[in-house]
Parts: sequence; C-alpha cells; structure tokens
Amino acid sequence: MARVVVDVMPKPEILDPQGKAVAGALPRLGFTGISEVRQGKRFELEVAEVTDEVLAQVHEAAEKLLSNPVIENFTVRVEDQA
Amino acid sequence: MARVVVDVMPKPEILDPQGKAVAGALPRLGFTGISEVRQGKRFELEVAEVTDEVLAQVHEAAEKLLSNPVIENFTVRVEDQA
Repeated sequence: MARVVVDVMPKPEILDPQGKAVAGALPRLGFTGISEVRQGKRFELEVAEVTDEVLAQVHEAAEKLLSNPVIENFTVRVEDQA
Repeated sequence: MARVVVDVMPKPEILDPQGKAVAGALPRLGFTGISEVRQGKRFELEVAEVTDEVLAQVHEAAEKLLSNPVIENFTVRVEDQA
C-alpha cells in the first residue's frame, strides 16, 4: 500500500472567505505573527501500488472530483510507499 | 516572508464521512485504483519570519483554532522560506 496526497487550494486570484475568517480570528486570540491564511483541502488516498497508470487516475480524479479547476489548483504527491 | 503549512486530518479512529463519500464516488466515475480516501484541511499561513516564537504561535493556533483536538490531528511544517 502507498499513500498519495492531493492538496487542493483556492487559486491565488480567488477570494478565500474561510482563510480570511481564520486570519481575522487570529489576532483576536492573541496570535499576531501570522499575516495571511489560505484554507484548502487535503485528501489522503490509499493505493495498492504507485504506477504511472494509478498516478494518472489520481490526477484525473483530482481534476474531476476532488477540485473545481475553475477556482482551485491541486498538487499530487506520493507521500509514503510501503 | 515564509509559508508555514498546517495539515489537519481526522484521527484514524474517527469516521470520515466526507472521505467515505469521495471513496464511494470514485469507482462510479471509473477510478478503480484507489482503495481508501480520507479528507482533511490544509492551511497555508504567511509569516514574516520563522522563529521559535512564531512556530510556537502556529502550534497553539493549530490546536485552538484550526483543528479540533478531540477528533483531528495536525502537523505543522515550514514549506518555503524566502
């Protein structure tokens, strides 16, 4: 088994209300060292083995199901391979 | 400026309905190589510089604001340092 991680983040030019809400809450809680926050999603996918075919499937799934390509970017990486 | 990433994932023993929904949808869309999915959150925090004090703040913010420690684990890592 191996784990493939797909990170989905709002595109830089897209407003991110969740991130803005977190960034607004931080100073109220006394955290002053953090200037900006963006919030996205992280998917951990378990696959039997990492082959080119499986990675192509993960890329396609990331594009079609896990992210909205109009407003989000995604990255795919193999995290650990057992 | 540097970027610190906080990944928040449901604990292994906690049910993850979002991940289950994605895992259920994958085979219907023709993706058969992925056996399990867990869904969490990814936060990208911009900080002026990475010091022990700032990292301690990020850890505390991750525990108090970004995650629910009862059901979620988080990891903090410095992604890039400019």
